[in-house]
Amino acid sequence: MKRKLVVIGGDAAGMTAAAKVRRIQEDWDIIVFERSPHTSYSACGIPYFIGGQVESEVDLIVRSPEKFKEEYNIQAYVKHEVVRIHRDKSAVLVKDLTSEKIFWESYDYLLIATGASPIKPAIPGVASKGVFSMSTLQSGMDLWRYIQKESPKSATVIGGGYIGVEMAEAFLERGMEVRLIDLADQIMATLDKEMAMLVTDYMNDKGIKTYLGESVTDIVADKAGKIKEVVTDKQSFETDLLLFGIGVRPNTQLAEEAGIKRCDTGAILTDVRLQTSAPDIWAAGDCASSYHLLKETEIFVSLGTVANKHGLVAGSNIAGEKAVFPGVLGTAITRFMDMEIARTGLSEAEAIAMGIEYVTASISSSTKASYYPGSEKITVKLLARKDSGLLLGAQIVGMAGAAKRIDTIAAALTGKLTATDLVFSDLSYAPPFSSVWDPVQIAARKLI
Amino acid sequence: MKRKLVVIGGDAAGMTAAAKVRRIQEDWDIIVFERSPHTSYSACGIPYFIGGQVESEVDLIVRSPEKFKEEYNIQAYVKHEVVRIHRDKSAVLVKDLTSEKIFWESYDYLLIATGASPIKPAIPGVASKGVFSMSTLQSGMDLWRYIQKESPKSATVIGGGYIGVEMAEAFLERGMEVRLIDLADQIMATLDKEMAMLVTDYMNDKGIKTYLGESVTDIVADKAGKIKEVVTDKQSFETDLLLFGIGVRPNTQLAEEAGIKRCDTGAILTDVRLQTSAPDIWAAGDCASSYHLLKETEIFVSLGTVANKHGLVAGSNIAGEKAVFPGVLGTAITRFMDMEIARTGLSEAEAIAMGIEYVTASISSSTKASYYPGSEKITVKLLARKDSGLLLGAQIVGMAGAAKRIDTIAAALTGKLTATDLVFSDLSYAPPFSSVWDPVQIAARKLI
Repeated sequence: MKRKLVVIGGDAAGMTAAAKVRRIQEDWDIIVFERSPHTSYSACGIPYFIGGQVESEVDLIVRSPEKFKEEYNIQAYVKHEVVRIHRDKSAVLVKDLTSEKIFWESYDYLLIATGASPIKPAIPGVASKGVFSMSTLQSGMDLWRYIQKESPKSATVIGGGYIGVEMAEAFLERGMEVRLIDLADQIMATLDKEMAMLVTDYMNDKGIKTYLGESVTDIVADKAGKIKEVVTDKQSFETDLLLFGIGVRPNTQLAEEAGIKRCDTGAILTDVRLQTSAPDIWAAGDCASSYHLLKETEIFVSLGTVANKHGLVAGSNIAGEKAVFPGVLGTAITRFMDMEIARTGLSEAEAIAMGIEYVTASISSSTKASYYPGSEKITVKLLARKDSGLLLGAQIVGMAGAAKRIDTIAAALTGKLTATDLVFSDLSYAPPFSSVWDPVQIAARKLI
Repeated sequence: MKRKLVVIGGDAAGMTAAAKVRRIQEDWDIIVFERSPHTSYSACGIPYFIGGQVESEVDLIVRSPEKFKEEYNIQAYVKHEVVRIHRDKSAVLVKDLTSEKIFWESYDYLLIATGASPIKPAIPGVASKGVFSMSTLQSGMDLWRYIQKESPKSATVIGGGYIGVEMAEAFLERGMEVRLIDLADQIMATLDKEMAMLVTDYMNDKGIKTYLGESVTDIVADKAGKIKEVVTDKQSFETDLLLFGIGVRPNTQLAEEAGIKRCDTGAILTDVRLQTSAPDIWAAGDCASSYHLLKETEIFVSLGTVANKHGLVAGSNIAGEKAVFPGVLGTAITRFMDMEIARTGLSEAEAIAMGIEYVTASISSSTKASYYPGSEKITVKLLARKDSGLLLGAQIVGMAGAAKRIDTIAAALTGKLTATDLVFSDLSYAPPFSSVWDPVQIAARKLI
């Protein structure tokens, strides 16, 4: 039977779901509304566009609305914002942001893929010119244009998470003097402190000034409304640009207003098939919650990998197949200049918070055979349950080739391996790639 | 109780076991006899010493006999060959290869870690000067000296396995014209043919001439006994150097003469604790068999990773702890110039030979986000059981960053994951490291 799917949000989750439905249901109507000017782009690539490694914002666009029409017969409208979900009439109210026209669009199935928005604190001056946060491709282009036009000499990054670290690199690449301020006593809150310190030290070596345990209280603008100073609870700094990287919140207002349930994280509650509490309404991507396989609870994750998987599962189920999203492990990876950073599973702080009795081991080794040219340092930290030896998590900080090893641990966690299983896993070795015991195995040996 | 361990063979397996025993049993006597001049070296590094990436053979030595004495109080005698095992008197007959003296050494426990030796075919001229095979560090140094002295212009490699491919690169790096001849109709027999072809094509592009389905019948030497020509069943070539890389055989003569059981592979049969059929005699490394977790039978593997694990397990058990070597997956990795090559589990050919009903998928993708600088091609082939979707194996061929992804699959095989489990595994993604679906997941999606 011919049905009609409406998708709210045209980035990773929404467009993956739309394309998946199309592959299964050739004759359905599929309509996507996206309030920004772009569909299906790599938000994770924006820092590298700002930093100059990626030449044009166009490179970040995976597929334009025209391509979706052509290749998938999906009608994707950009600059169209859904302003209301009317469950009783199975329709959404849409505003064309160009013409300002408002119209109803009915649906048989609705997918909410509204993403997340960066948090900006409610402090004076936050709306000044030169104050940014990272969300859409549009926001990245705005920042890029500001840099081109104003040639800022100095940048202040607030928040030392993934976005903060990546943007600090980007600003450094653009020749700015870069300051990073974090409220916590460490950057990279998803790493344990001693691992995060390796990153902080490297950032300092490369010229980033870090200020920990310090919170921004005020932004001072000049007469033209452009930022000139950032004030913290301890001091103040002159700055030409400020970027907030203090996290994101799921965009759930539409869902809330429609009476769709959320979970404690604030994200939309879904079942394993990505269905919401409302019949025929699904949610996927940053706006939806994810089950954490080790924490055994719903968490809020804002990552392209999860959004894509959500989209695939939601699309399959909407189109009538059966698919299940098993959950996440909290895997994440990034880089500062030449230093690679990755984590998966539980950190020590998380294991303590959960009351799990664990053992932990950290080792430093080399990314290749120690005698092989280009072999560099890698530090691996592993956690396992004290009773059973079941692996709980890993953190890796090191140079080229270090971080992608986190996938070995992610697969090991998925397969519920113990530290002993990891030691005896038949991992690969040749001198250009590894020491004879891979660093993750050296850590596992120490753990045992 | 103070005991005495004698180890025959002072490379990876033997020395790992000796060191492990020392860590558990502080007061035992530990004596190692090694017939070559070196202990504990990286045999896998020899091709890179020949190729010039590793400057000195000394870099390949992990620990000298002096270091073993100093750090572990282990007495390691090099240039000492054990010529007989006398089980009834629990002693070995040792020949000092320098003084030619022969003496008995008694033991409470004996570890056989005699390694493997390269196969040289019984053809005319095989003993000519300039004909080599790769085994000990000594053999690598002999080859290196020959290259220094004779400045060969051309080299012929017989056998397109790991050693053959690595040595072809080394000779190319040394400026030689290189020819590679393989009896089979493909190189890299552990890969399926179409994957091996990717390597062959790349080798050809880089200037290696490959001759497949061709067997060497004769080696012709000049009057000084130095190789000048190699003759195959199809043609003949002038060459200044010839290297056999046609496999190795386990060194089991001592064990055989002592009535210790071998398995069908020719290697010494051991239980999961690495104990042989004889009381108090253990075997580890290339001379011992390994259980293949997917083939569910004993196989012969000659790899540093396995030798180290064997050594660790044998050492633990000899010293009175309980340790088990679970088995291997047939993981292997290598490189030809910039091309990386890896495999684990079963190839299509192996699955067919076992009568397993399987499905397979191959994909080409990029090592990083496609728009990210330095993103290069990666081809992944996956196999899974047709009935259950359980993963069976993977092969990867690609450029920088491609091959180490095989460890994700090795961990997945260890954890008995299905293709669907792999698709939804929480693997890492950031543009400098991967596409949003890691290539191994793209392959798994296609497989489903």
